Amino acid sequence: LYNIGILGFGTVGSGVVELILKNNGNIEKKGGLTLNIKKILVKDKVKKRPEYIKELITYKPEDIIYDPEIDLVVEVMGGEEPALTYIRQALKNKKHVVTANKEVISKHGRELLELALQNKVNLLFEASVAGGIPIIIPLKESLIANEFGNIMAILNGTTNFILTQMEENKVEFSQALEMAKKQGYAESDPSADILGLDAARKIAILASIAFNVRITPDKVYTEGINGISYTDINYAQELGFTIRLIAEAQRTKDGIFVLVAPVLLRKEHPLSAVKDVYNAVIVEGDAVGRLMFYGKGAGKMPTASAVVSDIIKALKTDEKNRLNCTCFRDERVLPIELFRSAYYFRIKAMDKPGVLSKISGIFGKNDINLYMVIQKNSINNIAEIVVITYETTFKNIQKAVDEINSLDDIAEVSNVIRVKEEV
Amino acid sequence: LYNIGILGFGTVGSGVVELILKNNGNIEKKGGLTLNIKKILVKDKVKKRPEYIKELITYKPEDIIYDPEIDLVVEVMGGEEPALTYIRQALKNKKHVVTANKEVISKHGRELLELALQNKVNLLFEASVAGGIPIIIPLKESLIANEFGNIMAILNGTTNFILTQMEENKVEFSQALEMAKKQGYAESDPSADILGLDAARKIAILASIAFNVRITPDKVYTEGINGISYTDINYAQELGFTIRLIAEAQRTKDGIFVLVAPVLLRKEHPLSAVKDVYNAVIVEGDAVGRLMFYGKGAGKMPTASAVVSDIIKALKTDEKNRLNCTCFRDERVLPIELFRSAYYFRIKAMDKPGVLSKISGIFGKNDINLYMVIQKNSINNIAEIVVITYETTFKNIQKAVDEINSLDDIAEVSNVIRVKEEV
Repeated sequence: LYNIGILGFGTVGSGVVELILKNNGNIEKKGGLTLNIKKILVKDKVKKRPEYIKELITYKPEDIIYDPEIDLVVEVMGGEEPALTYIRQALKNKKHVVTANKEVISKHGRELLELALQNKVNLLFEASVAGGIPIIIPLKESLIANEFGNIMAILNGTTNFILTQMEENKVEFSQALEMAKKQGYAESDPSADILGLDAARKIAILASIAFNVRITPDKVYTEGINGISYTDINYAQELGFTIRLIAEAQRTKDGIFVLVAPVLLRKEHPLSAVKDVYNAVIVEGDAVGRLMFYGKGAGKMPTASAVVSDIIKALKTDEKNRLNCTCFRDERVLPIELFRSAYYFRIKAMDKPGVLSKISGIFGKNDINLYMVIQKNSINNIAEIVVITYETTFKNIQKAVDEINSLDDIAEVSNVIRVKEEV
Repeated sequence: LYNIGILGFGTVGSGVVELILKNNGNIEKKGGLTLNIKKILVKDKVKKRPEYIKELITYKPEDIIYDPEIDLVVEVMGGEEPALTYIRQALKNKKHVVTANKEVISKHGRELLELALQNKVNLLFEASVAGGIPIIIPLKESLIANEFGNIMAILNGTTNFILTQMEENKVEFSQALEMAKKQGYAESDPSADILGLDAARKIAILASIAFNVRITPDKVYTEGINGISYTDINYAQELGFTIRLIAEAQRTKDGIFVLVAPVLLRKEHPLSAVKDVYNAVIVEGDAVGRLMFYGKGAGKMPTASAVVSDIIKALKTDEKNRLNCTCFRDERVLPIELFRSAYYFRIKAMDKPGVLSKISGIFGKNDINLYMVIQKNSINNIAEIVVITYETTFKNIQKAVDEINSLDDIAEVSNVIRVKEEV
């Protein structure tokens, strides 16, 4: 019998408790050990809670962190502090820790894994990336024989829901965001999702593990989906693409690219088929080739599924098979300016002689070859020009944008989005 | 340093050796242990082999199985015997065993896992199902908190290659089979693949693990793809379906259905997007919801990826976290006659008054409601009738087939294939 203390009783915390109560009998038969939830830390003293947890409730974190009878602490409060402090204290008190906290792990994972090692306990965090989809342990164990070159993933359900709503219901970003809030998929302050920060934390964790390096979220070039309008999605559809917020990490001989940004993906690309709040992770290993893991990246019970499996694993793992930090490589993250890709431009321009030639001239001057140019919708003498380029550096793209915008009222870049032609 | 003995140096065996030689340095850093290939059992004394393995070669299995310095035996010979005997002997000699052998594991897995337990060693077999895709360990560990209701999978690359070739190149089964042989995807005797036996062994293993029961391949209702003609694929396409060889297991309150058979799947179904030699496994857990694992289900290096990760795991796992047989449930496999599904019929019938009414009468009499009837291609007074039914039992379908066929030369069922409308 192992005693568990849970820090936090929000969506994930209550899911963990429900799942343990529901399947504990079978978990015991399969895993060979029995879980006992001993204490649950809650914040709100007034909120109504289920009868069966009443006697487990505490308002003081020390009741859990310093309880000598507690073997394992589950941290499902979210946010950097005080979660980080509690995790540190729990590890120092020789308690295993299981957390779903991508912010803490992406920023402080290395320090915490070392602290766990020093104290001969386990720190597991499967739920911090892609919710219920098993990806961290499979990367660390089932795929240990592989060297990974690329990761490409949809890691944020909220933004994926918004993009697929825009696509399917032909609505603008703001309307799709409202729908996401109504369905409980977006928080009242959705900025961490919308701006790509949540996905950046998750790809930082995945890239660190897959490439055996240490990548923190501040090293991830990050764009959100707030600049995507229905017009862009409509053009994308017309040209055979969808738009998805893609978290990507590429290992090259010179270093690592790691970025989160919207991408035009061919409709045949497997990530184009990932809709609504689903997540998917594609990894490419030198032995295994391309693998995709697909499932629910968030939500009460999918996240609880990952947390509970981590609990069992943490309690069964000893020194011989402890999962330590494996960031033994010291490879640098390359500046995004060197990143090569094709790009989509949407440009508003005066519909008069010479304008298209000026714009083409700017692309040419910056070594950007054009794959496709479509001039559309001339209204009140303003034309919309859609350009898809061949592969070039992001530096060239940025220079072209600046130069087109400096053509004053003659032309203006409405949007620039990466394009991935390969499927 | 751990000594490994390898039984078999065919495609998989040579992949395992190559992968260990290539990535051993990193495997050591990640896994904390060093692998040393000590001996390799080969059969053919004449065949040329790479220089670097020459001094490792033996022709006597006892050299490996009874070598006290060998910690772990990799069995990659394939086939039931002598592989089964060698595995038994290795376990009795207290050597860990890693195998890719679906035939041995599906038929004798329980006995062998118990033998491993008695001898305090590990028996792992990730490579036996879906090649490089991590699925067995994720089911046993990462998804331990879930109860599974359904598994639906493409588990045989050869048949999937043939079906997608027929679909894309509009060719008949025999031509597609030739192409599969040419590309090395089909063996000279491809019957275990074509008839569905290979997929049946794999779904028996997956269902046993996911449902915590013991299902052997003889309990799996098995149809192959040898009866599928291009005509069927063409009708399927016209109606918005693909045809895939689907391995499926369903857990109901009365028992378990487990079957391998071709299925018409909606083009929007995620398994319709699985082409060529790729495999995919969809599992549905009560907590995690629907998950899909996708990747290469066979081939030298993908399979080696699974074998080498099993080697590391087997060497690091001790009594506390040993993966034993977890078939603690005694649920019966239900007769296929009770299985409910929609079905596609292709019927050849005399194009004269009253025939369609006779056929409809047979469906009605057997409680089969029709979702769609199309009469086509009347040539020489013979019409082709395509019917899609609503869900009914397989027993009713079998009766309808017999009764239509007994209409003598008036009508004949050319093919009957399951239909899955849900995506």
